[in-house]
Amino acid sequence: MNDVLHTILNHRSIRKFEDCPLSDEQIKQIVECAQAASTSSFIQAYSIIGVKNSEKKQKLAELSGNQSYVAESGHFFVFCADLHRHEVIAKMENKDLTKSLESTEKFMVALIDAALASQNAVLAAESMGLGACYIGGLRNNLEEVSSLLNTPNYVIPLFGIAVGYPAQQPDQKPRLPFDHVYHEDTYQQDSNIYLQQLEEYNELISAYYTERTNGKRSDTWTGQMSKMLSNPSRLYMKDFVNSKGLLKD
Amino acid sequence: MNDVLHTILNHRSIRKFEDCPLSDEQIKQIVECAQAASTSSFIQAYSIIGVKNSEKKQKLAELSGNQSYVAESGHFFVFCADLHRHEVIAKMENKDLTKSLESTEKFMVALIDAALASQNAVLAAESMGLGACYIGGLRNNLEEVSSLLNTPNYVIPLFGIAVGYPAQQPDQKPRLPFDHVYHEDTYQQDSNIYLQQLEEYNELISAYYTERTNGKRSDTWTGQMSKMLSNPSRLYMKDFVNSKGLLKD
Repeated sequence: MNDVLHTILNHRSIRKFEDCPLSDEQIKQIVECAQAASTSSFIQAYSIIGVKNSEKKQKLAELSGNQSYVAESGHFFVFCADLHRHEVIAKMENKDLTKSLESTEKFMVALIDAALASQNAVLAAESMGLGACYIGGLRNNLEEVSSLLNTPNYVIPLFGIAVGYPAQQPDQKPRLPFDHVYHEDTYQQDSNIYLQQLEEYNELISAYYTERTNGKRSDTWTGQMSKMLSNPSRLYMKDFVNSKGLLKD
Repeated sequence: MNDVLHTILNHRSIRKFEDCPLSDEQIKQIVECAQAASTSSFIQAYSIIGVKNSEKKQKLAELSGNQSYVAESGHFFVFCADLHRHEVIAKMENKDLTKSLESTEKFMVALIDAALASQNAVLAAESMGLGACYIGGLRNNLEEVSSLLNTPNYVIPLFGIAVGYPAQQPDQKPRLPFDHVYHEDTYQQDSNIYLQQLEEYNELISAYYTERTNGKRSDTWTGQMSKMLSNPSRLYMKDFVNSKGLLKD
């Protein structure tokens, strides 16, 4: 197995870091790797905010649902969907680009662009002996996050990535069965097979938790998911994104 | 430089392939790498459809704006945002999850999940000596794509990835200046610096095209962007996504 496959398959989210900041060189290397990702029609519709200031990191840790490892990370990256750049271009080039910038299509493009870049960043960091954890909790309160990071209109902070020297080596959680996620030529429509795959996966996940908690926990995956999704979260999102000028049409 | 950084930084989109299909082993390896990516709260809200059938590949090439390399690829992967699985879970667990599934937040989660997985897939393929190209053109006509691939409600095909043995080695296009994409502690708000960075980048891109076309082309980046964004594309997207049950609230 080559080193790239090994790094990818060895991924686990790291939530405990040594007290050691990343060097500027490491940060630059990670960002340059992020920038090397594909971007839709060369649009480059994202920005990255690196947070060094310890008060801001602390505040972001709180805003993300008191995830202390945000503050304790060696560096905290915030990945943003960014069409502000293209709004500036509209003025430079004396064009009205509003209809494009407000479209659902371009919102999707910016999200995908930012996510591709971020996954390059995570793998780059991991290849350098660092660990990383995506922080979706950043979306708990984007109004405050935006205000703290001073982001303009047409910019949506999407998630953070806490990066640092790992001080733990957690187990990897088994993923959904290959045949459940990967379909050939047509989306799997046999509902019996589909349900059977989910039930087999439930057994796997339940055994995983039982073993690791001495039997105290034996959640199934579908149980976890139905519990989580029964409590709709971040329902302010549409209004927030709209208020920044995006996703209007 | 380690092999992971080298693979990431060496990326270019490949649009010309040798006539050689991927093996099932290669496909499996690529998908397993995709699945190893982080996923928001373990939700795993994506699916991958691999297209082998040559008529379907040909049809998808046409639907994507006559991109012949879709049909000529060694394998064509379609990455989908997928919350259908969680709608099935609602029935299994006898819960009403509609409010979550319809939310803008969960639409974003599914897009980000799919994109993280896809970038792992691309890097895995590249590390195995293959080349890849993202096909956003798949979104030109998602109604027909969905019908061709038989995707159910709560599933949105987001983009394709054409993968195969590369028969070209294109140049890499320079990315936006590091300081323009990466901000420290606060989003860059000095509009003079911001504009200057864009103008410097315009010179770089213009020189890039001039050199490669013997002076026939000298587009600036902001010129390209304003031209592209002056023609809003895929304005049907919001209605389409809504019709599949997503992004309603």
